[in-house]
Amino acid sequence: MYRSHTCGELNASHINTEVTLAGWVQKSRDKGFMIWVDLRDRYGLTQLIFDEKRTDKTVFEQAKSLGREFVIQIKGKVIERESKNPNMPTGEIEILVSELTILNEAMVPPFTIEDETDGGEDLRMKYRYLDIRRNPVKNNLLFRHKVSMEVRKYLSDKGFCDIETPYLIKSTPEGARDFVVPSRMNEGQFYALPQSPQTFKQLLMVGGMDKYFQIVKCFRDEDLRADRQPEFTQIDCEMAFVEQEDILDMFEGLTRHLLKEIKGVEVAKFPRITYDYAMKTYGNDKPDIRFEMKFGELNTVAKHKDFGVFNTAELVVGIAAPGCASYTRKEIDALIDWVKRPQVGASGMVYVKCEADGTFKSSVDKFYDQDDLKKWAEATNAKAGDLILVLSGNADKTRTQLSALRMEVATRLGLRKSNEFAPLWVIDFPLLEWDEESGRYHAMHHPFTSPKPEDIKLIETEPGKVRANAYDMVLNGNEIGGGSIRIHDRELQSRMFDLLGFSKEEAQAQFGFLMNAFEFGAPPHGGLAFGLDRLVSILGGQETIRDFIAFPKNNSGRDVMIDAPAKIDEKQLDELHIKLK
Amino acid sequence: MYRSHTCGELNASHINTEVTLAGWVQKSRDKGFMIWVDLRDRYGLTQLIFDEKRTDKTVFEQAKSLGREFVIQIKGKVIERESKNPNMPTGEIEILVSELTILNEAMVPPFTIEDETDGGEDLRMKYRYLDIRRNPVKNNLLFRHKVSMEVRKYLSDKGFCDIETPYLIKSTPEGARDFVVPSRMNEGQFYALPQSPQTFKQLLMVGGMDKYFQIVKCFRDEDLRADRQPEFTQIDCEMAFVEQEDILDMFEGLTRHLLKEIKGVEVAKFPRITYDYAMKTYGNDKPDIRFEMKFGELNTVAKHKDFGVFNTAELVVGIAAPGCASYTRKEIDALIDWVKRPQVGASGMVYVKCEADGTFKSSVDKFYDQDDLKKWAEATNAKAGDLILVLSGNADKTRTQLSALRMEVATRLGLRKSNEFAPLWVIDFPLLEWDEESGRYHAMHHPFTSPKPEDIKLIETEPGKVRANAYDMVLNGNEIGGGSIRIHDRELQSRMFDLLGFSKEEAQAQFGFLMNAFEFGAPPHGGLAFGLDRLVSILGGQETIRDFIAFPKNNSGRDVMIDAPAKIDEKQLDELHIKLK
Repeated sequence: MYRSHTCGELNASHINTEVTLAGWVQKSRDKGFMIWVDLRDRYGLTQLIFDEKRTDKTVFEQAKSLGREFVIQIKGKVIERESKNPNMPTGEIEILVSELTILNEAMVPPFTIEDETDGGEDLRMKYRYLDIRRNPVKNNLLFRHKVSMEVRKYLSDKGFCDIETPYLIKSTPEGARDFVVPSRMNEGQFYALPQSPQTFKQLLMVGGMDKYFQIVKCFRDEDLRADRQPEFTQIDCEMAFVEQEDILDMFEGLTRHLLKEIKGVEVAKFPRITYDYAMKTYGNDKPDIRFEMKFGELNTVAKHKDFGVFNTAELVVGIAAPGCASYTRKEIDALIDWVKRPQVGASGMVYVKCEADGTFKSSVDKFYDQDDLKKWAEATNAKAGDLILVLSGNADKTRTQLSALRMEVATRLGLRKSNEFAPLWVIDFPLLEWDEESGRYHAMHHPFTSPKPEDIKLIETEPGKVRANAYDMVLNGNEIGGGSIRIHDRELQSRMFDLLGFSKEEAQAQFGFLMNAFEFGAPPHGGLAFGLDRLVSILGGQETIRDFIAFPKNNSGRDVMIDAPAKIDEKQLDELHIKLK
Repeated sequence: MYRSHTCGELNASHINTEVTLAGWVQKSRDKGFMIWVDLRDRYGLTQLIFDEKRTDKTVFEQAKSLGREFVIQIKGKVIERESKNPNMPTGEIEILVSELTILNEAMVPPFTIEDETDGGEDLRMKYRYLDIRRNPVKNNLLFRHKVSMEVRKYLSDKGFCDIETPYLIKSTPEGARDFVVPSRMNEGQFYALPQSPQTFKQLLMVGGMDKYFQIVKCFRDEDLRADRQPEFTQIDCEMAFVEQEDILDMFEGLTRHLLKEIKGVEVAKFPRITYDYAMKTYGNDKPDIRFEMKFGELNTVAKHKDFGVFNTAELVVGIAAPGCASYTRKEIDALIDWVKRPQVGASGMVYVKCEADGTFKSSVDKFYDQDDLKKWAEATNAKAGDLILVLSGNADKTRTQLSALRMEVATRLGLRKSNEFAPLWVIDFPLLEWDEESGRYHAMHHPFTSPKPEDIKLIETEPGKVRANAYDMVLNGNEIGGGSIRIHDRELQSRMFDLLGFSKEEAQAQFGFLMNAFEFGAPPHGGLAFGLDRLVSILGGQETIRDFIAFPKNNSGRDVMIDAPAKIDEKQLDELHIKLK
């Protein structure tokens, strides 16, 4: 037993107790006749005092040698502090040290182990074990633990069974790229790491397990954009004998439970909007609804005047930036420059100031009179004091651009508050999306998603119009979960594979086991998967998932701490029946 | 909502309630005027009744078409059963069906979905989703869920933080063979799948996380013996600022908690025996102590008589099989044949019957008198009525043979009761073991295990005699967990790598990150990992882990259900910069 107490628990009630503590030297202040040391562990900080008059001479001298991050064990008596620190749980006391053991020395760390560190991203990743000592990272990991424990408890209490599905499975060309694992015992063959346990959870439903969940690592070998990881964690769930409504209810319940238990936030029933509505109203299938600024379509009120730009545009659409009528020319120009950036790609922006007196002042006053602009204000729900921002052009592109602008304005206005939570469901996703590159339809969710029964008749004739029983849970502008009611009928599943361009042979080779399973009594079923990394970071009020992962990889998929991936022995390659190209 | 109730919950209190149920047709009995159907789901069975007089004609006709494993939904009224079944939770009632919907038809399953099935292992694995419908498999999966939830709750309550460590790490030639994953983005380089998160959990301790756990998949590419899986699950734990005693206490507490919560069994403080004692007393470092039959060494009392076999033997050792003095010549011969099997390899067996009257009758009466044999009885703790079984030869081999015989006799005597639990700790393992093949020492546990401080002086001179701070938890003859206090000092870790035959460069390339970490303030730490698959199967009172894994692989590492591993596309190989040999 290296300690009688942690560094976070001693207070005035312990005064005069003899204690043993162990931890790291956070800092040391040497006043010559008196040395104070802040001793740190996971649980907190405790102040140690070495006093020339009261401390044994050897111990006092030893204390002088302590450097930052030394690991020490001390024995001593809890005494009352002269100058108390009310901001610290242990701020009432300090320890008058009688014995000091240096358990391990430490080199000077390459960055400061403080809440605000001087270490850059690369250095922090290389010495991640030091970075984890910092409160922000440590607290994120503790927070993640709390979230995953609550998820497990909630789902287990609801009758879900945590079942481990295999990691060494089969590669499927559909979807993202697989990581593969050469088999030594089966020459020329490979396992794949799962992109998700999708087919296994469906088989568990065929197997009668009824309610399944798993917090599980998944893998995608894709070029990494910012804040994507090659391995990521899903809360993976599936239920049998359910309709969409049952799933939405269950997982809305889970999310509400997490918000309440973890954040102390009560949220009302989640709004539900269709994919079409989301795209038209927010230009985006994962709208941030912590704030308004819904899209107002202006085609009927802005076209067929003398403004050629709008007349030739497929879509004219605007938002009302609240309280921004007072923006200066410079501020507005900055927004125009922003939308013209190649990342956004708008060719220009029209604006209308809704003045306090009910009049309007716009950048297109030459073409539109006050009555016209009043209609724009109505369409965008602009009030006096708001600034209407209008983009135009190709409908899809313009919506995407206005969506980006909406988010940017909200950020500038401080409307994206990390302690506010606005969850919603987006439902009725299209079943398929057209892929220009391959010249065929792709499954928008995945090939196991069921079409809405009333749209099945359109599958062969107008596939693009078929809606799916698919839904996403969106929180603060992020998709945190998504799922669908699955196909459980072999015939329909087979038609889906046809539609997605699989030959009969390919479909059988890849997914024969699933289609066979459907012939032995598959129940109706559906499910959902949350992205845990993202969910935790949003609940934690932060933007980047990386700080909620103990040992993340960088954008080249490397772990710079352990220096992986790395070369392997020729002998290993031989055994695996492969060679380098 | 496909159902108002499950198939396991209706009883007399629901009589006259209108209900909706959904599930699988377990069986159907058609008496012409009356049809009974047992409807099954995860939660139980409910009897449905279709009655020519009371049931709508169309529904009645439809009921005749129901085959085994059809998925149906019914509406009906709960009525009292005429002949109640007190062995079934729903045995008081049946459902008089008014509406029947066939949700999915089913082909005749390839084996019966009953507790005792007619399906062989291969067929059950191929159609694992049908096998899971059977109560024994389903209940095993539910049991596993219960165990893992209890583990998480217990450890979380004790302050352990569940932290996910990476799956894509670096290959290390030490230990078992790694599964590797070619990197697309880093040409010619490979990730490895973890054999355990060992180094990461140690880095978490260096990072100050203090108490870590994870229920985590691990991977070993080894030739599969019976009941080994290439992917397996560990309960992985690590603690900082602990000595061996703290670890033993903590995880003895966990195991005691599981036995109590899951099995309702209270066990006393676990016995602790040393590795040396275990080997001498049971011939085995994972002794089954549900029964006695401790080894009695007979060298001093059996050698130096006229029996040449014993005189030339390094070790003469026996056990007392309780109550077996009455064994017939045939039964004894069967045991002799058993020890002579090549798998055991003894050249013969001597026996002594301890008769009720206090006399002895042995197969070596020619060489030993009653006084001699009395001493044998004392050494083996044999009582009147017992049968002493004696083997001799090379000490290590003979102990191994007698250990096998001890287990076999216990099995024959029914002493290995699956509802009895006898946990213990085996401690003071050797640090190193000599490997004949490579002609050098290997780490018995792993290279991070610390030697006992008092034995460090022997490291360079008598490495084989150095004991480690390493311990195994043993339950009913199985190692269910093992761990050690780790090295936390760079210098000592470096000496260990030297001893294990690593060059400085190899050690730095493989484990440089860990040794560097030790220079920045590593705390004393240690831990333990349980094999969850094994733990669950023993708690479940069964022998094979495979039935506690949802989708196990066969002895060739294949998943015969999905048919993995499999060939992959040439394009995938190209992208990964590898080709087949």
